[in-house]
Amino acid sequence: MKSHITPHNYNITRSDRRHRNKHNSFLIWFTGLSGSGKSTIANLVEKELFKNGINTYILDGDNVRNGINKDLTFSPEDRTENIRRIAEVANLFIDSGTVVLAAFVSPYKKDRENIKNIVKDVNFVEVFVNTSIEECEKRDIKGLYKKARAGEISNMTGISAPYEAPENPDVEIQTEKESIEDSVQKVLHYITPKLQLKYE
Amino acid sequence: MKSHITPHNYNITRSDRRHRNKHNSFLIWFTGLSGSGKSTIANLVEKELFKNGINTYILDGDNVRNGINKDLTFSPEDRTENIRRIAEVANLFIDSGTVVLAAFVSPYKKDRENIKNIVKDVNFVEVFVNTSIEECEKRDIKGLYKKARAGEISNMTGISAPYEAPENPDVEIQTEKESIEDSVQKVLHYITPKLQLKYE
Repeated sequence: MKSHITPHNYNITRSDRRHRNKHNSFLIWFTGLSGSGKSTIANLVEKELFKNGINTYILDGDNVRNGINKDLTFSPEDRTENIRRIAEVANLFIDSGTVVLAAFVSPYKKDRENIKNIVKDVNFVEVFVNTSIEECEKRDIKGLYKKARAGEISNMTGISAPYEAPENPDVEIQTEKESIEDSVQKVLHYITPKLQLKYE
Repeated sequence: MKSHITPHNYNITRSDRRHRNKHNSFLIWFTGLSGSGKSTIANLVEKELFKNGINTYILDGDNVRNGINKDLTFSPEDRTENIRRIAEVANLFIDSGTVVLAAFVSPYKKDRENIKNIVKDVNFVEVFVNTSIEECEKRDIKGLYKKARAGEISNMTGISAPYEAPENPDVEIQTEKESIEDSVQKVLHYITPKLQLKYE
């Protein structure tokens, strides 16, 4: 290997990637109870962004809990580690120039603060999908509330574990009052200015 | 939320992402001793791919050991967990349509086998950067070998911890015999056919 070659000169930077993609990259974090509609809204927001030529990726229970975080339980400590790792993965995607969407219950305020510390405030958009526990339990899409009531699941957020609602989310969606289409537009409206490269 | 909406219909798939990017996505894994030249070659390969419009990202000690894996040591167990997590992160990048390059010592055969299991064989390219321990110690770019000889670092691969060389790597580079330019071309030559979408 020739000694005059300095490896660091060859790194492609976050800035290079953003400029090539022609848009800024950041994290859109959806928090809310199980069954609140986080994943549905996140998927639809991603679809709109993708259609508009934005480089996107989505992190959710399906690709994270069965993969990098499959060693973690739902205990408070493991939930904290779960969120920490997701934030670190999100940070890598931001670095790669991708708008990354993440849909996780993420019930603890301190964990969501930690996400912001990891990806930096300017790269963090918090979307609170505010659906009441009564409505979530009524929907019970995954049957988790029934299991929790039967004592088959412990640490179920809203039943046997706390949910600490965000006080100042960037976007708040009330799925019991707003249509899904309006909810998606609300998120898109908020993030559109952030896509411009001036934010870099 | 309207009950007739099925969330799963809205997911953007790996195939959608690959088609939008107009190339296949996979992992190029560089293994070799500390100082072998893994990162330098990986960075130059990435630069060429990026220049050619390929969506790329690179995982290395800088962005992984200080981020998602900052809780891990260099013990054998933690090295295994280190590689597992990197493979899972790489898998997410593959899923996002990105050609992901990773440069890690990764001294254990079973850990490299595990990467292949996680990302699937067809998405895995193993590049063995075969530089002798004598040459790596002579280069000692990070001063690690000196520290290991002085007993300040334990579990130093090649000194106080084993390196299990790949038996059938997809590409083998001997940096003591081949120029850096030739090494980069060798990797590019191997992966170029894999970039075509037929591999999906």
